[in-house]
Amino acid sequence: MTPPQGEAKSSKITEPDFSAGLITAVVQDGADNAVLMVAHMNEEAYRKTLRTRRAWFWSRSRGQLWQKGETSGNVMDVDSMTIDCDGDAVLLRVHPHGPACHTGERSCFHNRPGGP
Amino acid sequence: MTPPQGEAKSSKITEPDFSAGLITAVVQDGADNAVLMVAHMNEEAYRKTLRTRRAWFWSRSRGQLWQKGETSGNVMDVDSMTIDCDGDAVLLRVHPHGPACHTGERSCFHNRPGGP
Repeated sequence: MTPPQGEAKSSKITEPDFSAGLITAVVQDGADNAVLMVAHMNEEAYRKTLRTRRAWFWSRSRGQLWQKGETSGNVMDVDSMTIDCDGDAVLLRVHPHGPACHTGERSCFHNRPGGP
Repeated sequence: MTPPQGEAKSSKITEPDFSAGLITAVVQDGADNAVLMVAHMNEEAYRKTLRTRRAWFWSRSRGQLWQKGETSGNVMDVDSMTIDCDGDAVLLRVHPHGPACHTGERSCFHNRPGGP
């Protein structure tokens, strides 16, 4: 929910809001700003990412915590993290050790919409 | 759900998958690759964005379709859209007509995590 303007301007967010469940995590390459992937975090994934400086997420399909690259080796070192204005999304700037996508593409965003 | 490797590599995604509900939309400035905001789309928002080349989303808090900037005037012209490898997120590259954030900041991602 978007707070009233005055409130939003004066309040400073220093933690994501996990009260509604998972938050969205956008992963961007710190070298050239390419958007690599989107995943989700619960509070544990968020805290582990802050503490270890590696990207940790919550897998909705497998129902478990996972470190990005734990099987492929393509881990991501996290340079910085920022929280958005309503606390339900974070932006990770990373140094990736390999392709972000399981298909081998550098970024998961590589499909063009088909035209009608 | 991540499909088996062989399947993912051979199948080509040309439409997002709305079967599980809303998809995530990441908005990036086409001029310098800055990530501006994250929002959500239902199928109507996706189709309107493709058709009008303006950014349309689904507001979860208000339960309605909205064009970004419809009240502030800070609309976003959409240069391109790509769909991610599992079809539940899209990346919009845009030309924004003003700040993306309701606080007046250029990007909604402007809060640093507080340290323990």
